[in-house]
Amino acid sequence: MEEQVDRVETQLRQALPIDWEVPGALSEAVQYSLMAGGKRLRPLLVLAAAEAVAADDADTSRGAMPIACAIEMIHTYSLIHDDLPAMDNDDFRRGKPTNHRVYGEAMAILAGDALLTHAFFSITQAAKHGGLPADRALAIVEDLSYYAGARGMVGGQAADILGEQGITDIGQLEYIHTHKTSDLIVFSLKAGGRVGGATSNQLEALERFGLLLGLAFQIQDDILDLTGDEQKIGKPLRSDEKLQKVTYPYLLGLDACKAKVVQLTDDAKAALLAGELANPDRLLQFADYLMRRDY
Amino acid sequence: MEEQVDRVETQLRQALPIDWEVPGALSEAVQYSLMAGGKRLRPLLVLAAAEAVAADDADTSRGAMPIACAIEMIHTYSLIHDDLPAMDNDDFRRGKPTNHRVYGEAMAILAGDALLTHAFFSITQAAKHGGLPADRALAIVEDLSYYAGARGMVGGQAADILGEQGITDIGQLEYIHTHKTSDLIVFSLKAGGRVGGATSNQLEALERFGLLLGLAFQIQDDILDLTGDEQKIGKPLRSDEKLQKVTYPYLLGLDACKAKVVQLTDDAKAALLAGELANPDRLLQFADYLMRRDY
Repeated sequence: MEEQVDRVETQLRQALPIDWEVPGALSEAVQYSLMAGGKRLRPLLVLAAAEAVAADDADTSRGAMPIACAIEMIHTYSLIHDDLPAMDNDDFRRGKPTNHRVYGEAMAILAGDALLTHAFFSITQAAKHGGLPADRALAIVEDLSYYAGARGMVGGQAADILGEQGITDIGQLEYIHTHKTSDLIVFSLKAGGRVGGATSNQLEALERFGLLLGLAFQIQDDILDLTGDEQKIGKPLRSDEKLQKVTYPYLLGLDACKAKVVQLTDDAKAALLAGELANPDRLLQFADYLMRRDY
Repeated sequence: MEEQVDRVETQLRQALPIDWEVPGALSEAVQYSLMAGGKRLRPLLVLAAAEAVAADDADTSRGAMPIACAIEMIHTYSLIHDDLPAMDNDDFRRGKPTNHRVYGEAMAILAGDALLTHAFFSITQAAKHGGLPADRALAIVEDLSYYAGARGMVGGQAADILGEQGITDIGQLEYIHTHKTSDLIVFSLKAGGRVGGATSNQLEALERFGLLLGLAFQIQDDILDLTGDEQKIGKPLRSDEKLQKVTYPYLLGLDACKAKVVQLTDDAKAALLAGELANPDRLLQFADYLMRRDY
């Protein structure tokens, strides 16, 4: 997995505006957040899903990498904008000052806009230089604009902000997490599947796997915010409590949450296996790894 | 032209998240700015360029409309983000309070993000429902991500913000305006051309036309900020002076600017004619209309 992360980071660096003719501060602000580390979970899911469908096809791998970079750009832009003073007002992210703390609010907004826009550029490069057929690339563009947009991640963030005072039940919380977290995970899996030429049955299995995995991931995040190691996680813990945020542990209790993560992970793996993929092993390992993570 | 504007507005309304399952305030914030009127210049240029290349082809018109909507979404998002307190801090736009004054900063940031993302969705719909071939739609996605991104509009806005205190020469000013204004105009023209199946020679002519037209447009804007009618323009005038912004009139004087708008418009028309388009008349009329506008 570390080897894969290295490959992703190398490609991300090359996909960056480092030698573009763009204002220096904008370029720096973009790089600062995009190269700030992190688990690179979503890109790894793109690559693993492509491999699950098409096994060791070199063409598939070449076509999948620009998509892997695209989803990391989307994820990074969302963190930059979410951290802004008008949104969650966070000062630290992955152990470093947040983008606007370093480059100012205006440049942070623009760095986010630049990354969001460039993600779509990156998808087109999978067709231009990675051998991905135009119709598959276009289906991935459509998916990304859906899952990252108002009906997806942006809608989840809006609901989160609008509901900050008033969330009382698990349904509202699930709406927020489905869109804030699961949607990009679902996108990653489906996009990898599309690169590999997945059937509609396989795409459905990947989608169901992603929905359940995303929810397990978010609950695990809530648990780690209560019980994790601040050094490993790289930001102040118990932030949900301080902000009086309604979370899964708050609504269900810690023990029930831990059991739910295990259950969701099992359900996710079963859903994946229903897709009869050529090589699902790495995705299954992923599900277990995410369940056991401590950061 | 009014008829075309009506067609664009009808389509924009249908492209909107009005019946999406998205949080109400996000949906309202998006609609508020997207349906706030304006000249709809960029969509009209998409339609006119498609017509210039392919004349009265019904398929072309059907394929061009989602692209026309996409560029208006991009333009609208850029206005919402530019008006934010951390950026230009504007209270009024087109005679109405700016988005963040009505919906708050967080929702304005998200409304902009949603529109930017949905623009790419709209392009995919030109292929899905408008008969546009996938490879052309994908070329349009690539163009949009280029001209609207860090190497285009976002880069221009960054340079504008970074340079607010230090612009001293026409070269820096031209860099900003090329990217803040011309790039989306160039995109609109090339995208319309691509929908109509333009040759590379025709695309080049449309690009050159757009660059010169965009520059003329921006200088005319600067002139109107000094000499226009506040009622017609819908925002407080002499804002550039108040902000001590360096503008073309500031650097060249008002009379030289007026002459430059005429010269650029003539050059633009000549560049367009070099493309030997089937039906360039509407684009030529556009150039004259923009030169003579008083709002």
